[in-house]
Amino acid sequence: MNVGILNIGDELLIGQVVNTNACRMSQKLIAAGMEVVEVCTIADDGTAIREGLERLLGKCDAVLMTGGLGPTKDDITKHTLCDFFGSRLVENAEALANVKRIFDARGYELTEVNRQQAWVPECCTMVNNYVGTAPCMWFERDGKVVVSMPGVPFEMEWLMDNEVVERLRNHFNTSYIVNKNLLVQGIGESFLSDMIEGWELALPKCIKLAYLPQAGMVKLRLTARGSDKAVLQQAIDKCVAELYPIAGQYIVGEDCENLQELVAQVLTREGLTLATAESCTGGTIAQRLTAIPGASVYFKGGVVAYSNEVKECALGVKHETLAAHGAVSEEAVKEMVVGVKERLGSDIAVATTGIAGPGGGSEEKPVGTVWIGLAYKDSVVTKLMHYGDRRAQTIDRTVNEVYSSIIKMIKEQ
Amino acid sequence: MNVGILNIGDELLIGQVVNTNACRMSQKLIAAGMEVVEVCTIADDGTAIREGLERLLGKCDAVLMTGGLGPTKDDITKHTLCDFFGSRLVENAEALANVKRIFDARGYELTEVNRQQAWVPECCTMVNNYVGTAPCMWFERDGKVVVSMPGVPFEMEWLMDNEVVERLRNHFNTSYIVNKNLLVQGIGESFLSDMIEGWELALPKCIKLAYLPQAGMVKLRLTARGSDKAVLQQAIDKCVAELYPIAGQYIVGEDCENLQELVAQVLTREGLTLATAESCTGGTIAQRLTAIPGASVYFKGGVVAYSNEVKECALGVKHETLAAHGAVSEEAVKEMVVGVKERLGSDIAVATTGIAGPGGGSEEKPVGTVWIGLAYKDSVVTKLMHYGDRRAQTIDRTVNEVYSSIIKMIKEQ
Repeated sequence: MNVGILNIGDELLIGQVVNTNACRMSQKLIAAGMEVVEVCTIADDGTAIREGLERLLGKCDAVLMTGGLGPTKDDITKHTLCDFFGSRLVENAEALANVKRIFDARGYELTEVNRQQAWVPECCTMVNNYVGTAPCMWFERDGKVVVSMPGVPFEMEWLMDNEVVERLRNHFNTSYIVNKNLLVQGIGESFLSDMIEGWELALPKCIKLAYLPQAGMVKLRLTARGSDKAVLQQAIDKCVAELYPIAGQYIVGEDCENLQELVAQVLTREGLTLATAESCTGGTIAQRLTAIPGASVYFKGGVVAYSNEVKECALGVKHETLAAHGAVSEEAVKEMVVGVKERLGSDIAVATTGIAGPGGGSEEKPVGTVWIGLAYKDSVVTKLMHYGDRRAQTIDRTVNEVYSSIIKMIKEQ
Repeated sequence: MNVGILNIGDELLIGQVVNTNACRMSQKLIAAGMEVVEVCTIADDGTAIREGLERLLGKCDAVLMTGGLGPTKDDITKHTLCDFFGSRLVENAEALANVKRIFDARGYELTEVNRQQAWVPECCTMVNNYVGTAPCMWFERDGKVVVSMPGVPFEMEWLMDNEVVERLRNHFNTSYIVNKNLLVQGIGESFLSDMIEGWELALPKCIKLAYLPQAGMVKLRLTARGSDKAVLQQAIDKCVAELYPIAGQYIVGEDCENLQELVAQVLTREGLTLATAESCTGGTIAQRLTAIPGASVYFKGGVVAYSNEVKECALGVKHETLAAHGAVSEEAVKEMVVGVKERLGSDIAVATTGIAGPGGGSEEKPVGTVWIGLAYKDSVVTKLMHYGDRRAQTIDRTVNEVYSSIIKMIKEQ
């Protein structure tokens, strides 16, 4: 089943906002076994919307639209859809009740402009948007489907998760999909591909494999498609079990989107706490973990020890150590990780110190040199990494290396 | 002058990668006075590429493509362009020298596959990609332009900044553009719009105004277009000067993309250092600042004081304070900010403590309650904010509030 995505909004075309909606929608559709053949971003313009819709309907079974449903004048999607489907706007009682509920909860009075949010084309099925005032609208034409959703990311996500994907599945009677993600770390994509080639060639026909590289890691996604969910699950489980003897040493986790989620899961499950001492990663290790709800269960806190003084005063790194070996050294990272573990009283501690660049490199320690330290129970482990000369990438890869090292360390103990 | 963007890559359609390229390209084109009328994302598929290109050329003066230029089998953009323009691939000496230079620098041997990176369609102008092995290709047909660039973000950015935008400007002989960004904070978009309505209506015809709202702030962009750069600059300067008496108290900065850039500029210029004590923002204040090169000049470091123990041991917050008032309290944030300023020895310190949610709220302190503290010289200032129940947004708005508070504090002293 082919889907086209039509994102409407001037803010997307002027580069004010990154189009994360398209990415999230694709992820949810792919996970449900649907294929996205095109993402098209256009302005809040009637002609552009009609043309885009007509064109995508020509090659897709369903077109999912976002944007242009606000109460202001430049939001014209609803009127354009009326026009496109030869319908007229009528007030929808359920949508009005929803708008009222939301305004009541916020203590705002309902104005005429807000009330108009509850008007939808007569020919559509109104799908209630519980988390916002702009209703979702479902249209059908010649067996094909057009869905219009608000462009506000969390409203779109709620609608996709709670209404739209399931309705599409039912309408098109799509086959079942079982997905399995494996996070692989410590081996490049091409080496991994060579290593598991025989296993990949022997995969049953109902299972597809995708390589999804991220900074310093690869996500392998197995997708099984068929009519019997239990059979698909068995087939996936068997394939995964067969992969472990071949590449198990590189598989750091299952069923997560990224390494910080995996770290959160493992630490919560094991009842362990973490503290961080970050120099070159500048707080990114802490920031990504604390972006996940529930971080306070396992995350005690951290020190962003950017300057040498802070390394000394907040972590207890010795002045002599920094003078003799420099801040980017094995000696310094050891004292940082031991210092933060003791001072913050965590079970596990991690530390980073390096030269993210573009400045600060030398012949001996070029830009991209990073020391990582880990402490757990009585052991302290250090690692020297050499990344490239791109600041953002060096930070990203360091953070992922730290996350996977935490997971391995817990596994091995 | 109308531009269409055609982003090619399976990874974009499956939601593996967010299409940040489109956003960055739009920003650069808009800043140069060009208009983006559509962004279209398609698969690595010959038919889709040809159709997309033909269609966008029908309505745009130029089509900028990214992606599909790698050395592997699934990268077919170059062959498809050959086909589209009725040309054939030939080895380009300058491109080959560039590939060799890059391989030499990395100490890799040049394989036949890599050498093929230097082959380009005979009919195109090869534009050297100094930062990568895939050359940029410039095609012309009936006065219209097609540019094919690699999809690797930093390579695309380098090409846009150093080659493509300037070449487009020359080819289409576009008028001059002068942009001016003003960061506005502490007032909602609609109130701001009412406040400056008279000024906006009186803007000269050559100047356009755009409202670009971000979390907790609004970026105003003035764009002047015409044939004389000096005249445009004068007109912009005059408008800005006229805006200050009307809304100057809300203007926190000029000529920055975001608040962290402004904080970095102001601290560097004033020679002041910063330390952070973050609870609910979990390291985000530090992380965004340290993502900008040169942060070590003004950023001493910070403490991510997630747990109460860390607030006590690393910041010196009194146990009694936490017991009597809780961690999310004016008393606690005061001791946090004073503690981090003293311990890390910075000129300025900031602290955050709050309930980002979804858990942890109470009737007295609902989810979204955030205390912010600032310390500079002898003064300590605190602020109580009430954000909503969305974790990511609460973190985002808190961080922006802290950044703008730093800027205001420095201004006022």
